[in-house]
Amino acid sequence: MKNLGYYNGTCDEIENVLIPMTDRVNFFGDGIYDATYSRNYKIFSLDEHVDRFYNSAKLLEIDLPHSKEDLKSLLRELVSKMDTGENFVYFQATRGSNTVRNHVFPEGGKANIWVNIFHKEILDVYKKVKLITMEDTRFLHCNIKTVNLIPAVIASQRAKEAGCFETVLHRNGRVTECAHSNVHIIKDGKLITAPLDNLILPGIARKHIIKACSQLGIGVEERPYHVEDLFTADEVLVSSAGALCLAAEELDGTPVGGKAPEVLKMLQDKLVSDFMAETAL
Amino acid sequence: MKNLGYYNGTCDEIENVLIPMTDRVNFFGDGIYDATYSRNYKIFSLDEHVDRFYNSAKLLEIDLPHSKEDLKSLLRELVSKMDTGENFVYFQATRGSNTVRNHVFPEGGKANIWVNIFHKEILDVYKKVKLITMEDTRFLHCNIKTVNLIPAVIASQRAKEAGCFETVLHRNGRVTECAHSNVHIIKDGKLITAPLDNLILPGIARKHIIKACSQLGIGVEERPYHVEDLFTADEVLVSSAGALCLAAEELDGTPVGGKAPEVLKMLQDKLVSDFMAETAL
Repeated sequence: MKNLGYYNGTCDEIENVLIPMTDRVNFFGDGIYDATYSRNYKIFSLDEHVDRFYNSAKLLEIDLPHSKEDLKSLLRELVSKMDTGENFVYFQATRGSNTVRNHVFPEGGKANIWVNIFHKEILDVYKKVKLITMEDTRFLHCNIKTVNLIPAVIASQRAKEAGCFETVLHRNGRVTECAHSNVHIIKDGKLITAPLDNLILPGIARKHIIKACSQLGIGVEERPYHVEDLFTADEVLVSSAGALCLAAEELDGTPVGGKAPEVLKMLQDKLVSDFMAETAL
Repeated sequence: MKNLGYYNGTCDEIENVLIPMTDRVNFFGDGIYDATYSRNYKIFSLDEHVDRFYNSAKLLEIDLPHSKEDLKSLLRELVSKMDTGENFVYFQATRGSNTVRNHVFPEGGKANIWVNIFHKEILDVYKKVKLITMEDTRFLHCNIKTVNLIPAVIASQRAKEAGCFETVLHRNGRVTECAHSNVHIIKDGKLITAPLDNLILPGIARKHIIKACSQLGIGVEERPYHVEDLFTADEVLVSSAGALCLAAEELDGTPVGGKAPEVLKMLQDKLVSDFMAETAL
């Protein structure tokens, strides 16, 4: 298949899949998701993404119908139907259905399960990107990967309009994350990244960067930092499932980073090599 | 019809209506809505609700396909198909469609238009209700009526679990609004209500209460107030399209209000009478 949409056991090309109007996603955005990539039909870090998906569901009290193993099997089976092995693999659960709109949880309902798969490769990790900044006006549940994403939509649109890759969000100057990535800095040979709290998503790529730093002997500080630290950083990094560790060359039109190219390359090489190894034929 | 679901020109009972998986509501909750009630097939305050709907769309840069007058005609026509004249009338616009998930706005796309209508009458305004309080953890765009409603879902569920009607939200003690209502107090013969800013929805029922107060010679202060003010208020009021002006008798298990029954009844009588007059045969 050229792309794939799945909903509660039905599977077709995305354009042909229809969703009941009664799904609670329609009126409340009442759902959670996770996403990763496949290469050679092998899904990268599937265990970690499924674990996070179950955690998002637990935090919102969404009752998932599958075991983790059944969900992984389903995702592997669906990826195997694709024309290519290099795909974006997206899965979602919504809090059941209501015939008529009602905020409170539906009685005894299991979640509806969604999958979206389409051809997409991870980005060239060595390509420099441009960023902008914006005030972070999102809710205080950013540790949960929900589909309440309007602020991320707006921030992504603003980045596009500015000819940039991403928008760095900050709360009154304190950097949180980007619209759909985490953000980190390298300063004096150390990685500095915002701590895990309700203001940021616990990124899987973020976790991989921290692990790679530890393996490479690069110190890591998980602590709050500020917009001004981005401008004085040796490198500014953004990470997500599809952008393992991209360095920024510009922030709000001002040059940033480029002052620790060896540390950066060592880190990027390690992350790419781990991705390639796990998804090798 | 017993209930009605409409999507981009297609209309059927809600259970039979299907939505393309490509609609951006599915992955971003990328839409806005408004809702009111009909009685005797007449839609209450339709102009005001449609005006607010267009304002929500404008604030999120969602390009609506209809003129206001066309939308009103559509809603009146759809209400006329119902088996009963007493209905909840809900309308929504989502930011177009994407074949594959992409945060940025789709190019040149008009919004998708949704309508939901089902039998429901406004609540008995003279019935006392119980409330709970919760920290307001929502985003900073609460003046826009979006379908990013997970925090409202959670707050509504908590109210239900506590056997209560609604949850009063507060930011570090400052009262904002409820999960799906505005909240006000009467103190020393005056109405006090939170000011219009990005923390609350500009409620149509709120506006009607302020107007009624002015007509009845009751003073109004639009200013921040706090949770402790709810406990010492003469009356605590919640208002929404379906709950014109309900008084609370209990907050977090403690008795509240009941100290200005004459002012309360005068206000409620006026609001009910205005609703009845506008929707009279």
